[in-house]
Amino acid sequence: MAWVYLSRVVAGPCAALSALIETVGVIEAARAVRECALPEVLQGPTEARRGIDRAEADLAWIESAGGRVLTPDDAEWPAWRLLGLGQLDPAHDEAGAVPLVLWVRGRRSLLESTERAVAVVGARCSTGYGNHATGEIAGELAARGWTVVSGAAFGIDGMAHRAALAVGGVTIAVLACGPDRPYPVQHDRLLAEIAETGLVVTEYPPGTSPHKHHFLARNRLIAALADGVVVVEAGIRSGARNTVKWSRRLGRPAMAVPGPITSAASVGCHRMIREGEAFIVTRADDILDEAGPLRLSLPGAVPSNPEDNLSGDEALIYAALPTIGCRLPRALAADTGLPMPGVRATLSALEIAGLVACDANGWSRTASPPATSTEAITAAHDQHR
Amino acid sequence: MAWVYLSRVVAGPCAALSALIETVGVIEAARAVRECALPEVLQGPTEARRGIDRAEADLAWIESAGGRVLTPDDAEWPAWRLLGLGQLDPAHDEAGAVPLVLWVRGRRSLLESTERAVAVVGARCSTGYGNHATGEIAGELAARGWTVVSGAAFGIDGMAHRAALAVGGVTIAVLACGPDRPYPVQHDRLLAEIAETGLVVTEYPPGTSPHKHHFLARNRLIAALADGVVVVEAGIRSGARNTVKWSRRLGRPAMAVPGPITSAASVGCHRMIREGEAFIVTRADDILDEAGPLRLSLPGAVPSNPEDNLSGDEALIYAALPTIGCRLPRALAADTGLPMPGVRATLSALEIAGLVACDANGWSRTASPPATSTEAITAAHDQHR
Repeated sequence: MAWVYLSRVVAGPCAALSALIETVGVIEAARAVRECALPEVLQGPTEARRGIDRAEADLAWIESAGGRVLTPDDAEWPAWRLLGLGQLDPAHDEAGAVPLVLWVRGRRSLLESTERAVAVVGARCSTGYGNHATGEIAGELAARGWTVVSGAAFGIDGMAHRAALAVGGVTIAVLACGPDRPYPVQHDRLLAEIAETGLVVTEYPPGTSPHKHHFLARNRLIAALADGVVVVEAGIRSGARNTVKWSRRLGRPAMAVPGPITSAASVGCHRMIREGEAFIVTRADDILDEAGPLRLSLPGAVPSNPEDNLSGDEALIYAALPTIGCRLPRALAADTGLPMPGVRATLSALEIAGLVACDANGWSRTASPPATSTEAITAAHDQHR
Repeated sequence: MAWVYLSRVVAGPCAALSALIETVGVIEAARAVRECALPEVLQGPTEARRGIDRAEADLAWIESAGGRVLTPDDAEWPAWRLLGLGQLDPAHDEAGAVPLVLWVRGRRSLLESTERAVAVVGARCSTGYGNHATGEIAGELAARGWTVVSGAAFGIDGMAHRAALAVGGVTIAVLACGPDRPYPVQHDRLLAEIAETGLVVTEYPPGTSPHKHHFLARNRLIAALADGVVVVEAGIRSGARNTVKWSRRLGRPAMAVPGPITSAASVGCHRMIREGEAFIVTRADDILDEAGPLRLSLPGAVPSNPEDNLSGDEALIYAALPTIGCRLPRALAADTGLPMPGVRATLSALEIAGLVACDANGWSRTASPPATSTEAITAAHDQHR
């Protein structure tokens, strides 16, 4: 009851109040707020609403909506996810504080649902291309067991939630308003579905309208609850850039999906990539390379293109062999200008390397070694450089 | 006549022959080749065709086509452009040598035309999007007085030439065959137009057919004649990647244009950007930021210790490299805590600055930073942020 009362008083994160609670306990802190027996730093933030106590009604409502209020004392509190927020300089940006409480709708454990999670966010005015790309990427992440975190907005956010729902995956909507407010109102039905199989999360008590500064604070929570943030489309002044900033401040990878250079909806993504604010990603594998646990390269991986690894006479001879079919050493000598003994010696070396073979008709390339996986390509690439 | 004779004998670059000419002069070198009075390293490359001398007919043909043969002795020879090729380790890759001669069609000076030049290359199987993007970018570069260098192939190359021609700009086609061979044959008319107002350039004597290894050598020449290479579309195994590799070896910026992640024709571009092989660019301004004149930040002295000039990720990565010996990118990532793409991008920037190099064993510090390191670091640094 004390937590719920305080959540309505400050309506959002408040580092000073969290610190007071940690020192004197939540009940004593609530009493101090009620009686205005407070250090000066807390008088401003609590002044407007310290007289309002609807804790009982609020609790009754969230329970009737199948939800709960999580506090740092709960086992389900995603403490390690939020740890980074507590370490940001609070003087620098108040919105950076650890949430006071979280209003949660949905049956899943927030702690477990955010164990492996990626945020997928982007432009409200998305294009058909952006929607398609979001569907592919968020759908693949969700199908592979990753929770998709987003902001339930029009455009990319909504598509990200829908794609996760469509494959039976887990998705979390983080709101910038009270848990009873569907925002945008057209996503009423979508939010209800998310609450059914995933989670709807907010720092704000019931009845809170979305305000501009709520969105900035909400963005930090999206970044904090995920292993990384992916921006699919973003105009030149998109709010997604703010989420990316939070992700970087928290030391987590920020990623952006490229698009046509002719599309205004991709300008922000290209700019973030170009300015080193976000890594370029084009598919779920790329995203998990950044946000997932480190994958080790396989020893013995084969290069995808054998020619890249050749030089000198070997490169000449290999290039002079047709992709399909055979040639005789004499023809190779005429083409490359190498003497016959050199041609033969080089063919032998290439044969030992498994790149060429010969039969009654002459010498041919062997079938290209297949690139078995992303790791193989990456490893081969590393070897090359 | 001696140059022209030798051009047909070796049909392409030949570092050993260039070295011999430098030592004994071209006439004496031609005599030595004719009489096979040669060091062993030159016997192979000259064996097949030293008996063929069509120098007179070749010269008559190129003159009748409004062209000329340029040699390193000509004032029009773009010596400083090709300087980097001569400094590549010739043992590592024969194709890296300085051209023996250049067969040129067109009235302009090659030296002047390549003073400010950008190569725009890409997929033969380009898409409507790629063609449009090429038209915008190459057209803008040409309109701003930059020469557009490309390979006259179908797709992106052809579009790049056409866009430059369309705005009355200068464009250079570099061929992988003789100057008399329109390749592809459907670009006969296009090549004639390029020769009319721009230049058609090749290392190969008249009659030479395009072979696969010619294309690899041709790609180095495209990279060498430009201040930087821009890839507009590239499939996963595009030849454009080879041109990018040359550009990087020559210490010039490699750039790639993003596209829809749903397009196979952009997969190679996205991969090069992701792996730090190319910078993302979306318009002419971005390209001139990378390839344009270097921005100097420090007047005067070059610091004795390159580390003094580094900051951020570059300082981290440089410090993580041993004074003697190599490391792999993955080990650097583990050490510095930077993600792999960041490691790769940073290594690229340091490579461009001449502070690190890589071989088959991994990345190492260069023995002695180049004299221009201050500017290079600043430029590489700017490119990055």
